[in-house]
Amino acid sequence: MSRTEALNSLHMLAAHVDEGRLWQRHLDMASIGATPLGGVHRLPFSKEDAESRRLFLSWASARGFAAEMDDFGNIFVRRDGTERNLAPVVSGSHSDTQPNGGRFDGIFGVLAAFEALEAIDDAGIATRRPIEAVIWTAEEADAQFGVGCLGSQAYADPSKLPSLMEIRNGQNIPVKQALAQLMADHQHLGSRPFKSPIAYYVEAHIEQGPELEAQDKAIGIVTAIQGHRSFKVQVMGEAGHAGATPERLRKDALVAAMQIFSGLRKVFHDPDDVVRFTVGEMDVVPNAMAVIPGSATFTIDFRHPDPDILQSLGDRIAVVARENAGPCDVTVSELRHSSPVVFKGSVPETILKAVESLGYSFMALPSGAGHDARYIAEIAPAGMIFIPCWRGISHNEAESATLQDMVAGTRVLAKTLVELANL
Amino acid sequence: MSRTEALNSLHMLAAHVDEGRLWQRHLDMASIGATPLGGVHRLPFSKEDAESRRLFLSWASARGFAAEMDDFGNIFVRRDGTERNLAPVVSGSHSDTQPNGGRFDGIFGVLAAFEALEAIDDAGIATRRPIEAVIWTAEEADAQFGVGCLGSQAYADPSKLPSLMEIRNGQNIPVKQALAQLMADHQHLGSRPFKSPIAYYVEAHIEQGPELEAQDKAIGIVTAIQGHRSFKVQVMGEAGHAGATPERLRKDALVAAMQIFSGLRKVFHDPDDVVRFTVGEMDVVPNAMAVIPGSATFTIDFRHPDPDILQSLGDRIAVVARENAGPCDVTVSELRHSSPVVFKGSVPETILKAVESLGYSFMALPSGAGHDARYIAEIAPAGMIFIPCWRGISHNEAESATLQDMVAGTRVLAKTLVELANL
Repeated sequence: MSRTEALNSLHMLAAHVDEGRLWQRHLDMASIGATPLGGVHRLPFSKEDAESRRLFLSWASARGFAAEMDDFGNIFVRRDGTERNLAPVVSGSHSDTQPNGGRFDGIFGVLAAFEALEAIDDAGIATRRPIEAVIWTAEEADAQFGVGCLGSQAYADPSKLPSLMEIRNGQNIPVKQALAQLMADHQHLGSRPFKSPIAYYVEAHIEQGPELEAQDKAIGIVTAIQGHRSFKVQVMGEAGHAGATPERLRKDALVAAMQIFSGLRKVFHDPDDVVRFTVGEMDVVPNAMAVIPGSATFTIDFRHPDPDILQSLGDRIAVVARENAGPCDVTVSELRHSSPVVFKGSVPETILKAVESLGYSFMALPSGAGHDARYIAEIAPAGMIFIPCWRGISHNEAESATLQDMVAGTRVLAKTLVELANL
Repeated sequence: MSRTEALNSLHMLAAHVDEGRLWQRHLDMASIGATPLGGVHRLPFSKEDAESRRLFLSWASARGFAAEMDDFGNIFVRRDGTERNLAPVVSGSHSDTQPNGGRFDGIFGVLAAFEALEAIDDAGIATRRPIEAVIWTAEEADAQFGVGCLGSQAYADPSKLPSLMEIRNGQNIPVKQALAQLMADHQHLGSRPFKSPIAYYVEAHIEQGPELEAQDKAIGIVTAIQGHRSFKVQVMGEAGHAGATPERLRKDALVAAMQIFSGLRKVFHDPDDVVRFTVGEMDVVPNAMAVIPGSATFTIDFRHPDPDILQSLGDRIAVVARENAGPCDVTVSELRHSSPVVFKGSVPETILKAVESLGYSFMALPSGAGHDARYIAEIAPAGMIFIPCWRGISHNEAESATLQDMVAGTRVLAKTLVELANL
């Protein structure tokens, strides 16, 4: 193919992204674990999870794409490059969901990657590097196992494997056992070693936040995945009769929790609105109308893209809690601490060029949520493409994105993958 | 008996209150529904409740006191007066408990009344009016049926009977059915019409608050039962991803609930520490660490002895809630509204004289909790005697009072009953 022909093919690539095919596959995936309210319940390692992976592999097989699996069940579907020994460009996400989750989170990135492979194929474009579509195992494992992104963590850092395998869910089943069941389905696949080189990694995903919709942008070029710290704050007071105990003798744990929360809101207030500070859980004991709360426990979810602010502001929580606890005792424990990851260089730059050439409206923004790209970025240049989702709602059956936005995101992805595969 | 002999007998009455007998009966009652942590679980209408009433009746029978029951199962044990047709002086309380409650709340008032009857009998004191010890049915019914003091309410106002009978518990069992089972035990008792005249009513009870202990007083002379209003505040926001949703686009129901709570604390702040304002229940949905709360519902328990303040301050709740709800919606509904009852005249005056003559330390104080005396006060001059309880803890297995304080309260009660029975 001459350079002119190649440019023409690339120009036509967007047209080869097939709206009807993409939507049909979206519907086929959404039917696996479909809930009555229009969501999807497809827990990691479940039979629905296995079924979504079989469906993905059936598409690959119909198209003649080879498939490989690593020892954590991560599945790679490959369109070869002209230089087969080069490290591939990889794109994808996960096919599992939160309990009663949505039908876009994760699976959109898998569908977009596979559609991109087919569109590139249909456009007759040859790339130097192979391009692969991946399903990472158990991204949504946090709800059952307390930790997420298990597959991408294992791939990027196999030294974590022994500890990941031993994590247990509420039924005391270790990851090892759940994973063995899931992988038993796919013993025929080629074997992929952990940490096999990846030239570039691109993940498409719904934003899971309201910024793109609020700014009326079609595409988000992700600048970073925020750092994330979470904390448990336990306030111990003293239960007592609501009618009989005077204020001066009370140790009301909920009053203290409220004052701590209020003090923290002041400290975490950010005029630039970059800080993400959330108290999502509040549990009062005994939680009875006529009894002064004896204890109140709440969680803090704190995220920031700047590692210094993540450290310094997060470290103030325990201090502010003690200052505002009044007559109660308070203990603060940290549940999670993950550093920010910045996406820069070739991947976001190539996404930007693709968006501009296709003429979509766009903005740069950090990701509020964590993603497999967080871990793959440790071993390869990485980046992400966001599309808008309705009102920013995610991890919820009401999660929704338009086909138009899905197509736009897939076109940007396809073009980005071709460019990266020829770098 | 001459006037001198009578005065001597009255002087000796305190000595006839038998510490050992009182404590043994306390232990016998505490064994019915005893919990491993030293409390009592003797729910209204339960087989334990029935057993406590049989035990009470067996004491009456051994002593030769007659017993009567009304159609709500309230049981009256009688020591006759010299003028048998006079309305009796009545004293008592309840023998049921909260779920996993204590072994003093309620039952102390029953034991004190019965011990007073025996002490008066042992002292050979004749009174003009009969004196009765009463067990009111289902005082602690609020935990299962949402309403308390059922027996005393029915006695004081039989027009409530049809509606009281239809109240149902969580298992959909109406009071009517639960009551029929309880009363089947006692078909042999004499029949007492509702609202039969009561000359005076005196109820002894543990304080269920910390004031007597804090002020180091043996006896509390109760001035009033506070008025009591309770409310449910429902804050509706919008759930969202804790990592992805910027502050300016959030409708965080827990933040709004906290701001409402904080605004209310300012409005209800009382330098004299008479206001009782408690948020005892807080329920967040979905209550997940990484999800912005979509709704938060909390209750308010508000009590005050002054009916005007009860009205005006309580009426401000809905206004303050709306002012502080930020971007969220809020609805306030009133769950309960009972007016204060003031104890004045012969009963508290007679209690005061008895305390002074016996030389106990004392203070006047309002009752924070509701009691059967609240309803009997509607049909008879009434009053209450409080004794201290450990750290004010009640409705709890840790509830505790000393035998010394129980004896003091019983001596004051016995003397008060004799004086009132001769008025």
